[in-house]
Amino acid sequence: MVKIVRVNNHCIRLRYGKPIDTESLEYDIQNAEELQTLPSLPLEIEEKENTIKLSYIMGEATKVLGLGENVRGMNKRGGLYESFCTDDPIHTPDKKSLYGAHNFLLVAGDTPFGLFIDYPGKITYDIGHTVHDEMYITINDVHADLYIFQHGTLKELTLSFRSLMGNSYAAPKWAFGYQQSRWSYGTKEEVDKILRAFEVNEIPCDAVYLDIDYMEDFKDFTVDQHKFPKFESYVRELKNKGIRLIPIIDAGVKIEQGYEVYEEGVKNQFFCLNNQQEPFVAAVWPGKVHFPDFLNPLARRWFGLKYKVLVDMGIEGFWNDMNEPSIFYTEDRMQSTIDMAKQSEGENLNIHSFFGLTHAFQSLFNHPDDYKKFYHQMEGTLINHKSVHNLYGYNMTRSAAEGLKEIDPDRRFLLFSRASTIGQGRYAGIWTGDNYSWWEHILLNLQMMPAINQCGILYTGGDTGGFSGDANGQLLVRWSQLSLFTPLFRNHSALNTRAQEPFAFDEKITRILKNIIKLRYTLIPYLYSEYMKAVIQHGVFFMPLCFEYEDDFSSEVEDQLLVGESLMIAPVYRENAKGRYVYVPEDMLMWKAVTEKIEKTEIVEKGIHYIELALEETPIFIRKNSLLILSKPAMNVDNLDLSELTVLGYVSDEAVYVYFDDDGVTRNYVKGDYAEVVIRVVYEHNQFAVTIENKGNHTLRKLHLILMGPDGSREERELLIDQ
Amino acid sequence: MVKIVRVNNHCIRLRYGKPIDTESLEYDIQNAEELQTLPSLPLEIEEKENTIKLSYIMGEATKVLGLGENVRGMNKRGGLYESFCTDDPIHTPDKKSLYGAHNFLLVAGDTPFGLFIDYPGKITYDIGHTVHDEMYITINDVHADLYIFQHGTLKELTLSFRSLMGNSYAAPKWAFGYQQSRWSYGTKEEVDKILRAFEVNEIPCDAVYLDIDYMEDFKDFTVDQHKFPKFESYVRELKNKGIRLIPIIDAGVKIEQGYEVYEEGVKNQFFCLNNQQEPFVAAVWPGKVHFPDFLNPLARRWFGLKYKVLVDMGIEGFWNDMNEPSIFYTEDRMQSTIDMAKQSEGENLNIHSFFGLTHAFQSLFNHPDDYKKFYHQMEGTLINHKSVHNLYGYNMTRSAAEGLKEIDPDRRFLLFSRASTIGQGRYAGIWTGDNYSWWEHILLNLQMMPAINQCGILYTGGDTGGFSGDANGQLLVRWSQLSLFTPLFRNHSALNTRAQEPFAFDEKITRILKNIIKLRYTLIPYLYSEYMKAVIQHGVFFMPLCFEYEDDFSSEVEDQLLVGESLMIAPVYRENAKGRYVYVPEDMLMWKAVTEKIEKTEIVEKGIHYIELALEETPIFIRKNSLLILSKPAMNVDNLDLSELTVLGYVSDEAVYVYFDDDGVTRNYVKGDYAEVVIRVVYEHNQFAVTIENKGNHTLRKLHLILMGPDGSREERELLIDQ
Repeated sequence: MVKIVRVNNHCIRLRYGKPIDTESLEYDIQNAEELQTLPSLPLEIEEKENTIKLSYIMGEATKVLGLGENVRGMNKRGGLYESFCTDDPIHTPDKKSLYGAHNFLLVAGDTPFGLFIDYPGKITYDIGHTVHDEMYITINDVHADLYIFQHGTLKELTLSFRSLMGNSYAAPKWAFGYQQSRWSYGTKEEVDKILRAFEVNEIPCDAVYLDIDYMEDFKDFTVDQHKFPKFESYVRELKNKGIRLIPIIDAGVKIEQGYEVYEEGVKNQFFCLNNQQEPFVAAVWPGKVHFPDFLNPLARRWFGLKYKVLVDMGIEGFWNDMNEPSIFYTEDRMQSTIDMAKQSEGENLNIHSFFGLTHAFQSLFNHPDDYKKFYHQMEGTLINHKSVHNLYGYNMTRSAAEGLKEIDPDRRFLLFSRASTIGQGRYAGIWTGDNYSWWEHILLNLQMMPAINQCGILYTGGDTGGFSGDANGQLLVRWSQLSLFTPLFRNHSALNTRAQEPFAFDEKITRILKNIIKLRYTLIPYLYSEYMKAVIQHGVFFMPLCFEYEDDFSSEVEDQLLVGESLMIAPVYRENAKGRYVYVPEDMLMWKAVTEKIEKTEIVEKGIHYIELALEETPIFIRKNSLLILSKPAMNVDNLDLSELTVLGYVSDEAVYVYFDDDGVTRNYVKGDYAEVVIRVVYEHNQFAVTIENKGNHTLRKLHLILMGPDGSREERELLIDQ
Repeated sequence: MVKIVRVNNHCIRLRYGKPIDTESLEYDIQNAEELQTLPSLPLEIEEKENTIKLSYIMGEATKVLGLGENVRGMNKRGGLYESFCTDDPIHTPDKKSLYGAHNFLLVAGDTPFGLFIDYPGKITYDIGHTVHDEMYITINDVHADLYIFQHGTLKELTLSFRSLMGNSYAAPKWAFGYQQSRWSYGTKEEVDKILRAFEVNEIPCDAVYLDIDYMEDFKDFTVDQHKFPKFESYVRELKNKGIRLIPIIDAGVKIEQGYEVYEEGVKNQFFCLNNQQEPFVAAVWPGKVHFPDFLNPLARRWFGLKYKVLVDMGIEGFWNDMNEPSIFYTEDRMQSTIDMAKQSEGENLNIHSFFGLTHAFQSLFNHPDDYKKFYHQMEGTLINHKSVHNLYGYNMTRSAAEGLKEIDPDRRFLLFSRASTIGQGRYAGIWTGDNYSWWEHILLNLQMMPAINQCGILYTGGDTGGFSGDANGQLLVRWSQLSLFTPLFRNHSALNTRAQEPFAFDEKITRILKNIIKLRYTLIPYLYSEYMKAVIQHGVFFMPLCFEYEDDFSSEVEDQLLVGESLMIAPVYRENAKGRYVYVPEDMLMWKAVTEKIEKTEIVEKGIHYIELALEETPIFIRKNSLLILSKPAMNVDNLDLSELTVLGYVSDEAVYVYFDDDGVTRNYVKGDYAEVVIRVVYEHNQFAVTIENKGNHTLRKLHLILMGPDGSREERELLIDQ
């Protein structure tokens, strides 16, 4: 039995059964029109055998975008996927699920449509894997909301979906600075050593991360006083230097008598329960833990307010981890696996018994059946975890976001999570988890960005240089040439891998990376402006080319992105490559940026090009009739001089750019307390005419304009800004 | 202390200490000139601390080709590598070693040079990984032969190296047919079912593979009579239909009383010994095994003659596997690992102890220290395996090759191995091991081909469609569009993966794959001719573009190959791609082959192109002034009609093609018993002049020529051939 409502011009919702309220979306359904007859649908939907099955026949040219954070290309066709938040650190193309569950598809066939499946358990997608032209989606349940978006372009359908998500999370401006991480800078001495190297090398930096080793025995909301003595004054000392410390918080709470978080959780029944209605035991970093029941609003508030102990010490940013949740093992599975080992003792193990044994140990980690072993208290009833699995990380992050808002209502905290689902974009960003120092993962990082944005998560980025494995300098340079455009630009690497800081390689690499990071700071006025506009206008920051260009070739491009409204990027992602092929869908101004200085610019004509790109050259393409606003670099975001900015423009007719800015620290932008400077450049009769409208920016004093016209004309001028 | 001899015009040998004779090379050193002073060398060599260290400073443009079968691109720069034959089934870019140990590098800097390190233990290569511009090679020994090749082009240096390797292995002609494999077609019924599907779908096929399950309990040289009753008559029955059965042979010999191979090996001391001088025990497929001591010539001959039991049943081809050798576990390591599990019982395992335990089970498989536990008898002395590790698979394959020659001196057997080292090309081919059904592995397959050829192994190919993981139809099509040019064109897939035969997908995919396989048979006259010329002339079959084209761009191309002297290939290796970028280094004739019919041809100008390629289109580029010789397709190689052939040519001045053929079955080609037809086409004054010189081909009656000129001229003509 299906109940249909029209949600907006583009969207209808089909409600099957009585779905669990995931709170993924936030929109006013009160006055929505209920439809009495099923409108024509772009795909087949069938309820049978306690499942809902969706099917669609794809034409040879049909592309299927979406699925947020996942493996394979932008076009998901050919793959099998599952939406089931999974801590799998090896992102090879055969994997079905990563950390997020992002059930949004954009089907680009003859008539484009979008599909969002609002359902918190596992969904499987066969997108032309089994049969080249056929797509099948299976929900093993009869309770789900399906949202279908029609009658628009891919971009319009995406924006229609975005409009249902509520207000997006806005990171503070300093979170657009360069950030340095490692598992782990485990002591004050190590952090100091790293920061000294940044200083000596004069490389800007805004934040240093504390991975799990800063805690006492991996206990959330504790700081090991031996490793970080006088933590509070250390946090403030670094903040005076423009450096924030960002500690990690894990989902599992260590079982330890006397540990306050553990004791309070047990006392108040805030932990997930096993089938005996006792707190469920799993093992993660510290050994045995309980999982807070983030689906219980009381537990969620309790945990969220725990962040106060660190906020009170001056912490302004957190990353939430292991919140799929990741489970190393459960006690009974460990026992049965050890029993298997004992039974193998002295046996002549052959192919079957040998791999049976080693596989048993291997599959202790995040065993799917372990997710059936615990329960949540939702509105007074116990719900098995597996059926709401994808809500866990989301609600942990919501817990943090709501807690932080209660702790310090006005402050914007940096907050991002590993696990996520759609809706989480209201509370935080995500990073793309434990990638590898593989060249393929630069491309994967690029390809995920627009798909994650489609799901409403705007603050995002990958572990630059790769988490696992050993990077070389060249890889880190090329990866950084992508990450310098992602809102989160963080270099992070794993235990036992090669050091990966920008100064960990040779002098030449250090010099190049320093220039790239300085270039990042130069780009912050533009990146922050575009990000905040996407936040406020429920838009996206990254787009595939086909969102803006309708030619067939644009929809084939899988290795270039539009970044905000003015830029296209095309980073190199092949080892030793001296350049790359770039498709330029309209005439653009190319800037091969070596430093923040605007040199090596040229107009590139619409079409296919092989662009030579030396290791130190970052390619930046400014779209036709577009402007890019730039500052001078600084050693951190707080020190950016935003009183004098540069505008680099390529204008054949008219370009209008709205430069957004606000305090970058408070939530006042929500009340409209922000500034816009409207910069308009008209090119007519071989002349540029520039007009500026200042709506409330009291910082900007001067604009230096560098304008290029279609015929090779170039003009520089300076303008004073009225306050 | 180094002793230097001039080996040939291009090559000097530097002998350090008293190296083990690997027999990798075969050349006459008797009259070689000993040099009294060290000539100027292109790289630094230093003996210190019981190691030999080589170092070289690379310019920004320097490329380093070679290392045979290995991960990453054709240009190895940026990587860390080890030459240590390794059974690692996950070929991700961070791996240091695959199944082969191929110590040949071609350094393409300002002055190109080649380097072959003749040493049978582990060598490590840091090719710009640690420091972007520096290459370091370390041999942990003071006994090694270094061959340095100088004063020539990359191709000349390669051919100089090839000239030192002795005569190459020549596969029989039927081994150029399409071959179907799976782990496993485990019964006669399964083989019959597969063959019926080939028949029903009218898809040509020459061979079906028997993976480990055809044996009795994984015992070499046995056939399970329940699974394959009346094996001998079955082999002959299939051969009458044009199908060869190719059984696998593993390195480990099952320990089982009453099993002849085991008992003979023990009795004659033909197995590797442990440090108690008893036969060393390791475990592989059947559980506990002994490893034949292939480095002992007596054991080698003994094992090689064992193939007779299968040859006598009509078998004409074998694949040698698990010969790195792969070790699942050794008894003492298994015991200590189980002890660790027992000690973990009831413990609260945290990050350290949990991963310690699971890692211990994981690293049972091919543990590096297990290779120190056994010994070979070489010329009367015991040598630890680890120091000669890379000779093991090579000598297993030599054992088979020499055995087969003794068993049936005149017949050419199909023989290829997983492990290999340089020198093995005299005895057999290799396949590239357990790849994945990943798009990245199509490219990796392509990139390995010329590097493997440089090491003298000419008969090679990858598991088409990917061994592990689930292929989709599109992937198998695109991969087949590469494999149809590799001497070994075999579709192989693993236990528990999706069926991967050409008819295992949908109708459309079956139709496309059928056309590709038929196209393969059409190409056999050319492929076999080019392969045999490379065999006889000590040449190569695959080349990177930079071997023939000296422009800078050609040396950047990592995803195209030259196949023989007439062709360039540029297969699609991206999911859902509708085409790809191709660099055409001179004007070429492009044929987008859909079937064997010569349609969709056009001249493509020198330069960069985006070539649209529908799924069913295989791009074939015929070089300028080159000819491609083609037959009609057939259901197997024995049925190819070689009396009427087609020549497709692109001639602007003059093209000469020497079409080689022989009986394809015997070793008579070694005695010069083969035929050559010299086809010469001259284009002058807008006219084609064709002359044919027939040197001994008694089959060819008629040539159908399709000739394209530079100005769009096209001519077809038929020529009768003088016998």
